[in-house]
Amino acid sequence: MTTHSATLAVDEAVQARRAAGHDVLHLGFGEAGVPVAPGLAEVLTDAHLRNGYGPVAGSPQVRAAAAGWFTRRGLSTEPGQILFAPGSKPLLFALLAAIGGDVVLPCPSWVSYAAQAALLGRRVVSVPVPAEAGGIPDPELLERALRQAHADGARPGALVLTVPDNPTGTVAPAEQVEAVCAVAGRHGLAVISDEIYAELSHHGTAPSPVRYLAERTVVTTGLSKSLALGGWRIGFARTPAGSWGRRLQRELTGVASEIWSSLAAPMQAVAAHALDDPPEVTAHIAAARRLHARIAAEVHTRLRAAGALCRPPQAGFYLYPDFGPAREALRAQGITTGTDLATALLDRHGIATLPGSAFGEPGTALTLRLATSLLYGTTPQQRHTALSAREPETLPWISPALTRLSAALTELTAGRHRRPRS
Amino acid sequence: MTTHSATLAVDEAVQARRAAGHDVLHLGFGEAGVPVAPGLAEVLTDAHLRNGYGPVAGSPQVRAAAAGWFTRRGLSTEPGQILFAPGSKPLLFALLAAIGGDVVLPCPSWVSYAAQAALLGRRVVSVPVPAEAGGIPDPELLERALRQAHADGARPGALVLTVPDNPTGTVAPAEQVEAVCAVAGRHGLAVISDEIYAELSHHGTAPSPVRYLAERTVVTTGLSKSLALGGWRIGFARTPAGSWGRRLQRELTGVASEIWSSLAAPMQAVAAHALDDPPEVTAHIAAARRLHARIAAEVHTRLRAAGALCRPPQAGFYLYPDFGPAREALRAQGITTGTDLATALLDRHGIATLPGSAFGEPGTALTLRLATSLLYGTTPQQRHTALSAREPETLPWISPALTRLSAALTELTAGRHRRPRS
Repeated sequence: MTTHSATLAVDEAVQARRAAGHDVLHLGFGEAGVPVAPGLAEVLTDAHLRNGYGPVAGSPQVRAAAAGWFTRRGLSTEPGQILFAPGSKPLLFALLAAIGGDVVLPCPSWVSYAAQAALLGRRVVSVPVPAEAGGIPDPELLERALRQAHADGARPGALVLTVPDNPTGTVAPAEQVEAVCAVAGRHGLAVISDEIYAELSHHGTAPSPVRYLAERTVVTTGLSKSLALGGWRIGFARTPAGSWGRRLQRELTGVASEIWSSLAAPMQAVAAHALDDPPEVTAHIAAARRLHARIAAEVHTRLRAAGALCRPPQAGFYLYPDFGPAREALRAQGITTGTDLATALLDRHGIATLPGSAFGEPGTALTLRLATSLLYGTTPQQRHTALSAREPETLPWISPALTRLSAALTELTAGRHRRPRS
Repeated sequence: MTTHSATLAVDEAVQARRAAGHDVLHLGFGEAGVPVAPGLAEVLTDAHLRNGYGPVAGSPQVRAAAAGWFTRRGLSTEPGQILFAPGSKPLLFALLAAIGGDVVLPCPSWVSYAAQAALLGRRVVSVPVPAEAGGIPDPELLERALRQAHADGARPGALVLTVPDNPTGTVAPAEQVEAVCAVAGRHGLAVISDEIYAELSHHGTAPSPVRYLAERTVVTTGLSKSLALGGWRIGFARTPAGSWGRRLQRELTGVASEIWSSLAAPMQAVAAHALDDPPEVTAHIAAARRLHARIAAEVHTRLRAAGALCRPPQAGFYLYPDFGPAREALRAQGITTGTDLATALLDRHGIATLPGSAFGEPGTALTLRLATSLLYGTTPQQRHTALSAREPETLPWISPALTRLSAALTELTAGRHRRPRS
């Protein structure tokens, strides 16, 4: 019925290859790749007596901390609008369940949205993103797709936006977010704004849809990316103020109570601490943001040099190159799909990526998603060094990896490979 | 669309009453009520560097530990049959999703099974339990219900059994489990055996359905009850050996990858340690088991003295009295449903319980579920003392609570209350 999440599957495949002695350059997985911020381990330790279940939505302390965190970022929020979960992934699933209706997604978009919709028996309405940036559909195409969807008997209920975006690593311009929200509002959609990368916008802040469709936009986020705590599973949502938002908060709490009960209490303690924005935590995030920006820019330059089209990275640690300009050279090597391309990179060059088809694109698209964050090192010491380096791209475990990537890309796009695949 | 899980809802209501200064005797929530076992806090602390996502099913270490744990309990298991999750609740949900089909439940049964089925758009086929014990349906009624369900157009796919049982606190006899498994096998059902209370069987072991329908039975369990770690959210499942089991393991991993990614890595470290059965952990569980047995037996005596029917407790910390024999006396006080009875206990006597209707029974059933584990104390010190007490029922914070409960029950069943409710 379901397939293994493509991002998690490629990570497990890479670990297996490495265990078998292969040298793999892992650009397939959105692990943030920096160490745990100072102070968090102590909070985790101090929380070990908290073994009771506690409230579904989170403790009063952690909900107040999250409300303060949003409020300090210009979005006035009450603790009653907050709900915590073991990661933002279960929150997205619970929101699709609670909001109801079919699901409208930008294309490309993160691998799990469509899979979650399928688990709930919902249809997906897929709308291409504009040229400028990913994460939001093209407003005109959205209008058209919604009309067509209704004509086809679909009942669109939720529009998922990703600001900043995964897989493209870009930030949608404010005017496009506004235009998309206007269309969503006219069609009575709820907006789920996945803002897990908001703290990692390279320059300035990202325009949240909640500013344009305040009473119908739910924001989801968490600590997996900004603080590299994917393995601690800490996510939270902000439901809107107003009567629709209050009803959604109740529904969402109900779904949460039946699927996961609550976020682990020691992890709630960690979140309550981190979301108070202590200086050592904000400094850690700032250093990570700089590292992500610098390495993503470096890889972008190399992708362009190898002949790929690619939007310049603006947030997080992703790039989404399109190798369409090299289609003829690739075809001569037996490469006609994004999956062929990802397979050739892995088999011939030991470089793991994900094809655009994992993000909803047609198989023939010669797009890949590259995550650059696992270039920072494999040991905590290397990652610490990368985090504080002035020129991390010159570090002796990063520089050769970049060279290896350039060589592999150039060989592929120049058609210098001598053995076609089949 | 959904309601808040009844058990979590009553807990939050009690906390709110207490915060408002009311003295509530909390018998409504299945919190195991004992302290954290020795050694676990240190493991949690030592695991703080594990911030990466890791494999969906769990690390090789924790899967090996769980396989060893099952194997030492007489159920030979390979690590590949194990999958971890943030609690057993998400596992039950993912299993219903992965197995497919409508859901057959004993009546009464734990509150979330039916709610999860509803979230997935599945029908529920509800079959009464026999007089001896809860957690499994009456075998003859099951056969009849399945035929009727097929005639009504339902497509039963999964049968959920609870051995030992919540809400009745009983252990089904082996021959009844065997008979139910035979019916399930003939009808091609998969069995989901919820064994979260297996370590808390008061005398001897509980008969797992996996012994009778080995290739079609999935076992779910976790550390929330045996080690009172509800707030740490650690659950795991064992899929069967054989080709159906291998396919289910893949499907389950796929669903897990889309809904929750993985159990938090520090919690995996805790599980790997605890599931190796170190002596201080098994001693802690043995002490908890003795405490649960002793207090549940004490409350059972008092329920019978007040005129309720009630199966003797055999596992965990639950009792499921039926006040049917006092129906006339209760009616004279305006109490005609289980909800009326629970409301009267809370409003007149400050005693929180749950009505049988929360577990799937008709509203007119005068049944309640009592959880006895929150009688052990409200502070870690009280709980430590209760855990090691030879006669915990005589402790100065437990004995008066038992007396208060007896007085309230006797007043209700003897009809001594002067003011009818409406």
